[in-house]
Amino acid sequence: MKRRDFVTGLGGAAALAGCAGESEQAGTETVSQQRFRWDLVTTWPPNFPGLGTGVNTLARYIDELSNGRLQITVYGAGELVPAFEVFDAVSQGSAEMGHGASYYWRGKTEAAQFFCTIPFGMNAHEVNGWLYYGGGLELWREVYEPFGLVPIPAGNTGVQTGGWFNKRIDSMQDLRGLRIRIPGIGAEALNRVGATPVSIPGSEVFTALQTGAIDAAEWVGPYNDVAMGLHQAARYYYYPGWHEPGPALECIVNREAWDQLPDDLKAIVRVACQAASLDMISEFMARNAGALRQLEEDPSVEVLSFPPDVLAGLKAATLEVVEELAAADPVVARVWNSYTAFLEESETWQRISEQAFLQTRV
Amino acid sequence: MKRRDFVTGLGGAAALAGCAGESEQAGTETVSQQRFRWDLVTTWPPNFPGLGTGVNTLARYIDELSNGRLQITVYGAGELVPAFEVFDAVSQGSAEMGHGASYYWRGKTEAAQFFCTIPFGMNAHEVNGWLYYGGGLELWREVYEPFGLVPIPAGNTGVQTGGWFNKRIDSMQDLRGLRIRIPGIGAEALNRVGATPVSIPGSEVFTALQTGAIDAAEWVGPYNDVAMGLHQAARYYYYPGWHEPGPALECIVNREAWDQLPDDLKAIVRVACQAASLDMISEFMARNAGALRQLEEDPSVEVLSFPPDVLAGLKAATLEVVEELAAADPVVARVWNSYTAFLEESETWQRISEQAFLQTRV
Repeated sequence: MKRRDFVTGLGGAAALAGCAGESEQAGTETVSQQRFRWDLVTTWPPNFPGLGTGVNTLARYIDELSNGRLQITVYGAGELVPAFEVFDAVSQGSAEMGHGASYYWRGKTEAAQFFCTIPFGMNAHEVNGWLYYGGGLELWREVYEPFGLVPIPAGNTGVQTGGWFNKRIDSMQDLRGLRIRIPGIGAEALNRVGATPVSIPGSEVFTALQTGAIDAAEWVGPYNDVAMGLHQAARYYYYPGWHEPGPALECIVNREAWDQLPDDLKAIVRVACQAASLDMISEFMARNAGALRQLEEDPSVEVLSFPPDVLAGLKAATLEVVEELAAADPVVARVWNSYTAFLEESETWQRISEQAFLQTRV
Repeated sequence: MKRRDFVTGLGGAAALAGCAGESEQAGTETVSQQRFRWDLVTTWPPNFPGLGTGVNTLARYIDELSNGRLQITVYGAGELVPAFEVFDAVSQGSAEMGHGASYYWRGKTEAAQFFCTIPFGMNAHEVNGWLYYGGGLELWREVYEPFGLVPIPAGNTGVQTGGWFNKRIDSMQDLRGLRIRIPGIGAEALNRVGATPVSIPGSEVFTALQTGAIDAAEWVGPYNDVAMGLHQAARYYYYPGWHEPGPALECIVNREAWDQLPDDLKAIVRVACQAASLDMISEFMARNAGALRQLEEDPSVEVLSFPPDVLAGLKAATLEVVEELAAADPVVARVWNSYTAFLEESETWQRISEQAFLQTRV
């Protein structure tokens, strides 16, 4: 589901096959009755629980709110373009709209991933606070502008889990040589502490873990992990998901298609994305809780916390990686400055609100 | 801002002054072009930071999405009806729409408050999970149905703070005789452990605290508390807000007015409320964080955690109060059963996700 590299570009024919902002204007109707049919390509398998179905919800919202004036056809990964060509397909206008995670596009611009999630970074509340009220979304628009893309936040899984392991992790020493399926900056951090991150498509994770081709794999959280059967491929389920504490998902719109929408349809797309975000966070909350209960009751599974010194080691390695990215790229530096300034304030507030409240439960 | 009792009913003339679902249908247009003008009465002072302004955002969303077909005029508390007559005003159709907190209406039905917040209950993620994906919203609709009201979740402040105190709270003993401004079940719990909760309108809290008429007061959180100047009226700022861990706010719509809307406008109201919810949570996240920094830097303020035994004592007292409510009212019992069943699963998930992640920060 995740990988660092992606294949650049579409064939010219494919890129020209769609037409950005294709519209059917009935001659006798006013401009506000102009109808649009858009294609939405996603990085998720068709109807993938929570993520793919969340995009279906978004498309339904837009259809209902616009009374059918903006109809969106959702394509799962590979149905129209491969998962990791979504960015290019929408940039080039072969689809008007896309849905995915901005950390897939770090090959385009390293700054992209900060708008999704960073290991030990913001949780869902914080990333939404930063995006909507802390200048994050303005920066995201700037970063995507050269690609002819309009980014709109559209979903969040909440804190993920640390993944499935075929051996216990009791110390940093246990990470050495560990073959683990994990993408992005988390993978780089693990690499620095001696693990061997590997890149494996989601469809192959179960088999790789079960056969011992890999020792560990992170995926999403209990809801998706159980659906994929990962609890039948490994014994130890580690938390928390230090590498993805609150990934914000993205809707991207081709700039030319966007500019052809009347103001009310633009508002419909923006507001539907914001509503679909809350809907997705809520669904993951409910379904992860239910799936976790199943795992807690499964005698073949042990749900374990990473030891504090392992988390501290991974945090130090993460900071090294990010600081190097910021030193190498002034756009990353500007985004990282904004991100850390917000986080510095928000983590104090989270400490005395969410964290202090949750501690009253134990 | 909060009180248990509310004044029942509107004068007959006032109740008839508005007309539910007032519409202007242009003879030559299709049904889908029918226009509506609604009044929205709120329990918040006009443009009250976060809450009142969040309602303004909701009204703006609806106006933009509907291209002006559903125009909503927002009235602050007292502008059309007093704060605590919002429920009756919308129920009787003197306003089509209302915004407030369902715990204000426990005088109508004790079950109402569970859809907003319960001391030591669900946080924002959890209450949204329960409402949208755990059967909570269906129950809420049932509970409000006899009043001719359609409830729609529309906002959340996130975890609040414990309030401002003119003396330190080091043990349960320090709560004895404490005159504290706090509403609802939290007030009842405090009463059982020997405190003296008092009911004071928001506009009088600052003066009451500054003059020593009361010893303590809870309000909302750093953003609103600083705006009201409470940090200049008391020294000790306690956390967490055990009494309001994630209050979901409500939009209520008069049933007859609702039934007159075409499907697309119904969808617009529902989805705009969901989007406005996320927007409000995000605004509170960002602005509370900023205001807390100001308080942390203020030498006249001490930000303190309630001692664990005080929180444990208040939790036990809360449970007593809620169990008594459930024993006395079968509707409360049904809602409480659904609530606790969800919470039992969700708190395990929150423990290994949000809480475990936030603990990596210290």
